[in-house]
Amino acid sequence: MQQQVITELKRLVGAQYVMDQLEDRICYSFDATFRDFPPDVVVKPGNVAEIAAIVKLAGRYNVPITARGAATGLSGGAVPVKGGISLVLTRLNKIIDIDTANRVAVVETGVITQDFVNAVTQAGLFYPPDPASAKTSTIGGNIAECAGGPRGVKYGITRDYVLGMEVVLPDGSVVELGNKFDSEMAGPDWGMLLVGSEGTLGIITKIYLKLVDKPSAKQTLLAVFTSLDDAARTVSEMIASGTIPTTLEIMDNLTICAVEDYLKVGLPVSAEAILLIEVDGSTKAIVKQAEHVIKVCRQCGATEIQTASTPEDIDKLWQARRAISPACGKINPTKISEDATVPRSQIPAMVRRLREIAQKYNLKMVIFGHAGDGNLHPNILSNKHDHEEMERVEQAVAELFKVALELGGTLSGEHGIGYMKAPFLQWETGETGFAAGKTIKKVIDPQGILNPGKLFNA
Amino acid sequence: MQQQVITELKRLVGAQYVMDQLEDRICYSFDATFRDFPPDVVVKPGNVAEIAAIVKLAGRYNVPITARGAATGLSGGAVPVKGGISLVLTRLNKIIDIDTANRVAVVETGVITQDFVNAVTQAGLFYPPDPASAKTSTIGGNIAECAGGPRGVKYGITRDYVLGMEVVLPDGSVVELGNKFDSEMAGPDWGMLLVGSEGTLGIITKIYLKLVDKPSAKQTLLAVFTSLDDAARTVSEMIASGTIPTTLEIMDNLTICAVEDYLKVGLPVSAEAILLIEVDGSTKAIVKQAEHVIKVCRQCGATEIQTASTPEDIDKLWQARRAISPACGKINPTKISEDATVPRSQIPAMVRRLREIAQKYNLKMVIFGHAGDGNLHPNILSNKHDHEEMERVEQAVAELFKVALELGGTLSGEHGIGYMKAPFLQWETGETGFAAGKTIKKVIDPQGILNPGKLFNA
Repeated sequence: MQQQVITELKRLVGAQYVMDQLEDRICYSFDATFRDFPPDVVVKPGNVAEIAAIVKLAGRYNVPITARGAATGLSGGAVPVKGGISLVLTRLNKIIDIDTANRVAVVETGVITQDFVNAVTQAGLFYPPDPASAKTSTIGGNIAECAGGPRGVKYGITRDYVLGMEVVLPDGSVVELGNKFDSEMAGPDWGMLLVGSEGTLGIITKIYLKLVDKPSAKQTLLAVFTSLDDAARTVSEMIASGTIPTTLEIMDNLTICAVEDYLKVGLPVSAEAILLIEVDGSTKAIVKQAEHVIKVCRQCGATEIQTASTPEDIDKLWQARRAISPACGKINPTKISEDATVPRSQIPAMVRRLREIAQKYNLKMVIFGHAGDGNLHPNILSNKHDHEEMERVEQAVAELFKVALELGGTLSGEHGIGYMKAPFLQWETGETGFAAGKTIKKVIDPQGILNPGKLFNA
Repeated sequence: MQQQVITELKRLVGAQYVMDQLEDRICYSFDATFRDFPPDVVVKPGNVAEIAAIVKLAGRYNVPITARGAATGLSGGAVPVKGGISLVLTRLNKIIDIDTANRVAVVETGVITQDFVNAVTQAGLFYPPDPASAKTSTIGGNIAECAGGPRGVKYGITRDYVLGMEVVLPDGSVVELGNKFDSEMAGPDWGMLLVGSEGTLGIITKIYLKLVDKPSAKQTLLAVFTSLDDAARTVSEMIASGTIPTTLEIMDNLTICAVEDYLKVGLPVSAEAILLIEVDGSTKAIVKQAEHVIKVCRQCGATEIQTASTPEDIDKLWQARRAISPACGKINPTKISEDATVPRSQIPAMVRRLREIAQKYNLKMVIFGHAGDGNLHPNILSNKHDHEEMERVEQAVAELFKVALELGGTLSGEHGIGYMKAPFLQWETGETGFAAGKTIKKVIDPQGILNPGKLFNA
């Protein structure tokens, strides 16, 4: 990169917010995936005007820009695969407004999701999306990758809460897209183009989010199964029976054993699977819902069911779910976390096929995830320095995506496409859909400066 | 139009589905707005392959195509303002699948909304969007205009139920956009570009729709107010208090009198306003909700409250709401139905400003609408043959839009932009937003053959 770019960047945002030393560049070279791509320079703008100026500058010098929130992504969206500028958005961290009368919040892109959730809760309302990364990740990143979380089954995913946004387009112009409140609808919902666009179409700087009622009570249940098939069947039976729990999480035997080994809390290590189910609503409604959940679990073969109603007991049941990532990290250093999603009715079939794939390629695979909306997280536990094993991992991952699509599913429920799944995207979109995506990218970003090498790889 | 186009159209879809006689063209020249634009030819294709072929043909001969469902639109979206082909989609009327396990329905574009709602209800689930036109309008039209309805306040609008769709693009290629189930999210949600696009970006041929739980009970309440301000304030207080009714409809005194004159059912003609409020949920929950609704209404000055729980009584209360359109039609022949929407907290201010506008231009204006989500329908009752009056109407409409935008609102909550509001769209989008809309239209439809003269007028 030309020194002139760095000099101009320093003039635009102040020298203390521009970093080009090797050690800085390494710090911004990775996210939660396993490859490193150092940017040429790291810039931390403080407001939308600075971002617009940086984008214009990048256009003049034809330098790639990759936007970055907290870089907790699992598909590589925030990693600058073609170098250039890493645009760190964490200084834009103001919660501008929580408008309880209109149930709309306005936040800057770099607000930490959990900080926002807490502020909304304090205002007496509820923002449901709850990606596992919430304590670290930013709202802007959640939207760029369309994050989900356990509550997706009942409340939907990030997409369902985005009303509108302020965006810096690739030519440096600043536009407001979408809507500022829920009932607004004048023309196409351009804002939706940015949801899941992974920083390839514009830099999201401010967001209008929909808020909903806070449920007054919740209850958590843990159901134990001696057959993984039974657990998977419980999920589809539960939804078909008309009761939508707030969360419906599955953990298979390998996951249970890994977590028990890590936490030592007395999980049923001989169980083939457990389901972690939460219901919410009014105090009366949850009693009825919980009864129904227990009935369906028993009918499908659950051998044991624990329930929890106090915050402490609920927290204890969730502890196991939250410990999956660190527990798996203890087993093998490299955790390839996949995100293939299938229609809920296909969960039993998907689980069977995943186990066949793990066996075929002789890989350690834990299966867990948001079973309630078909969003499974098969995680392959491996070692990135074992090249022979990594080759088998690659083959297994490709096969896993093929199976998901074959079952009517998708490459991604909530992790995005990034650089990791870009090679497979055409399987899902088809040739025409892929070409259409490339065309739209080309029009909006003719120079291709925004996050090259992701999504449509354009 | 060249005779050759008509000959080729007949070859493509069969002569009985191509009409070019004056009387046919007149029948397809209008919708629920008040101007007529006859197409050069009317075509009724039977499947997506025929539609793709027609679009390619239109491209070759550079002939405009305006898609049309039932043409119940209130902004002129389905009217062929530049002539050319009126593409009537009503033969694509199959409900392909109602998948209760995955809570997804797949329908062809020309399915009548109410037929679809009935089929979903019979399958034990619920499709909430309920535009007033539901008995006539088509699902494809609902999506192209992003229709809403009274239930929007609790359940959201059509946009919130669209998962994905099959679309014929302006070059005649057929693509699947968006998602087939709720938790799918691979790349940007292109499908959302088509929602509210009014046939300017593609012809929607098949749609994937999200279904939800059917509430087990409902209760309807009618609250009478001696002050319109009090009624408007009740709406914002109700939402802010944390109870979201299923519907929250307002009718002002002129509306009440018009309906009473038409129906003679004993409506309170001296009331300044009534609110029609419905709550739904479990049998127990609605009792609590109704109590709360009554409390808020009384606190805000309601002088009388009627309640209804049986289907017959509920229907009686709704009769008045449903009769507004025919009742107004009896007063003056031309009903200019506007759709400006403001944040809920601004309803009292908007109602005051609307009354000032009516007075200033000496016009008969009834105010009613989906107050719960800020979507008011000020209707100006006039006579299109009285040119002096129509000039005042035009000025009043422009002022009404200005006020809505000034209060943080929008030109359209559910009626779309069409040709009617196209001249005002730039006020809402700003110059950059408008230019962006024009650019995207130009890329997707470089020849401009799809519904020219609407939205971005490109």
